[in-house]
Amino acid sequence: MDQGVEWLRWLASTSAYMRNAIRDMVVRGAPAIAIAAALSLAVEVFNLDFAGTSGDAASFLVKKLEYLVSSRPTAVNLSDASTKLQNIVSKTAKTATEAKTVFQAYIDAAETMLTDDVADNKAIGFHGASFLPCQLKDSGKLSVLTHCNTGSLATAGYGTALGVIRALHAGGSLETAFCTETRPFNQGSRLTAFELVHDEIPATLITDSAAAALMKAGRVNAVIVGADRIAANGDTANKIGTYSLAVSASYHGIPFYVAAPITSIDLSLSSGQQIVIEERSPKELLCSDGGLGKQVAASGIAVWNPAFDITPANLMTAIITEKGVITKATADAFDIKGFIQKAQGNDIE
Amino acid sequence: MDQGVEWLRWLASTSAYMRNAIRDMVVRGAPAIAIAAALSLAVEVFNLDFAGTSGDAASFLVKKLEYLVSSRPTAVNLSDASTKLQNIVSKTAKTATEAKTVFQAYIDAAETMLTDDVADNKAIGFHGASFLPCQLKDSGKLSVLTHCNTGSLATAGYGTALGVIRALHAGGSLETAFCTETRPFNQGSRLTAFELVHDEIPATLITDSAAAALMKAGRVNAVIVGADRIAANGDTANKIGTYSLAVSASYHGIPFYVAAPITSIDLSLSSGQQIVIEERSPKELLCSDGGLGKQVAASGIAVWNPAFDITPANLMTAIITEKGVITKATADAFDIKGFIQKAQGNDIE
Repeated sequence: MDQGVEWLRWLASTSAYMRNAIRDMVVRGAPAIAIAAALSLAVEVFNLDFAGTSGDAASFLVKKLEYLVSSRPTAVNLSDASTKLQNIVSKTAKTATEAKTVFQAYIDAAETMLTDDVADNKAIGFHGASFLPCQLKDSGKLSVLTHCNTGSLATAGYGTALGVIRALHAGGSLETAFCTETRPFNQGSRLTAFELVHDEIPATLITDSAAAALMKAGRVNAVIVGADRIAANGDTANKIGTYSLAVSASYHGIPFYVAAPITSIDLSLSSGQQIVIEERSPKELLCSDGGLGKQVAASGIAVWNPAFDITPANLMTAIITEKGVITKATADAFDIKGFIQKAQGNDIE
Repeated sequence: MDQGVEWLRWLASTSAYMRNAIRDMVVRGAPAIAIAAALSLAVEVFNLDFAGTSGDAASFLVKKLEYLVSSRPTAVNLSDASTKLQNIVSKTAKTATEAKTVFQAYIDAAETMLTDDVADNKAIGFHGASFLPCQLKDSGKLSVLTHCNTGSLATAGYGTALGVIRALHAGGSLETAFCTETRPFNQGSRLTAFELVHDEIPATLITDSAAAALMKAGRVNAVIVGADRIAANGDTANKIGTYSLAVSASYHGIPFYVAAPITSIDLSLSSGQQIVIEERSPKELLCSDGGLGKQVAASGIAVWNPAFDITPANLMTAIITEKGVITKATADAFDIKGFIQKAQGNDIE
């Protein structure tokens, strides 16, 4: 059983506990938030002594889902998952005679989200690990730089960008993985480093600011990161510092990949300019341990602490999804809509 | 009296204490190290009951200076200062009859280094604050991004890059100063933020990795940094992360300035490739507070922690010195040797 799944099952005890855990970033990572929230409510209704009708059960679940979404309103995966689950619940309530039928439909749907996410991540890993060595054929084994945490601790399991690194390692194609600290919350040094050491993947930690010097030294063959949201043109919102890595990769002629499930793509956004960036607390910079420790910075200094930045599509080489790799249709543009239509067509066939 | 001078005088009690303070980075910043070391020995010999000859006094001072240099053998300003002071001591000992004459010559020379450094920094500030607004004439007030600490806490006082920011502010030309955290030792959030708040200069702290996003948002008119060493072609060794800022500045068409005294230029090095980069302890990344706090990163992860990186001259706009601003002689090259010869010629005239 995957570590991430174990961990989520353990954590997912009640929706109230989980809402606080998401708000306080005990659970973080866009896919993990959605699945942890869904599972916490599944555990809660499994253990519930409920006296109402099937309609009451549906109302109960919808209210609880909206409550969970309020933990981090800008997390698109969470609100997407909530919408999907609400639709399943409402549809079931229309025909079901008993509350427990609605609850069971919800539990089944939440568990399917969990297994689907792991399967999608493994597919992302497979596509990435097939694609990267082909594109970089002169390099022998590859050294890959990643940012933030996109592994078992950010997803239901295996991971997106870190899933590709896992798959490269499993296939014998990985020389070493470099992970950044990822200031200010240190997801790289705390979480990615932990996962890499745990899986015995050769890995080296660097400061965010050392990435460009590492590239200049010829020690990075590819950069691969996850995505919080991808616009229709490919512009990608991801953890602050991603854009800096993309600029440096472009300057050094190093390919830059985004690995994410299709659900991270929001075709309603024409470009990254439409993505609103969440600003987080100054405390994350003013105090050690991402805001949890003692004060290190001077009192009175202003702070700019955006959670994400936008990497424009022109700095990206390809987007690796569970349905395959989206490469550039022209020199500087992805045809993401076309790719998704084709992928959905293949599913139907 | 300048804060930095007060602080150095207080700290400089004995050479043994100072050697440990430099080794443990209690005193840091290339010019500050040299002057603190020189002053610590001046205080020691001022209070010394010494029975030997003038030759004995010279031997004593030379030995103590070599001991001080051993604290951070790669610090070029410290070994340069030691060489200069040793020459003065040896020259004085040849004609002096008493030990106290040699000691007094040493004390005078150390005090001159202190006052000269502050005067040089104020001249750097003057030249920078005259040059930047002229070069960036459409911008009105300027927002300037700096890295690491180059202020009163890194020099004898006033500062180099931070001296230019001080002078811009004093002249009413500064909109705001942005300072990076400067991982892993947080010189930016601990020291630069402190100096900016202390001097009531409008200032905002960012993570190192947010610099590129800040530039993309159009909020930075210029980047200005210090230098640990400058090669004959202009390539500059400075705190890790400087190169990343230079790449981002270049990508966004933002001028990139290095501010440093002429003594930071080493004409014996033809390019930055000849500068050896010190690698520091993995602990600085593995534990919070730059290695002094509790462990945050996973045990067993490898770490790459270079103290400096090299910014090539082609990414630099100009070098601001106490003798004036070195601009590009051709599209991509500085004539640093020519500039120094001319500056020295002007001094002689």
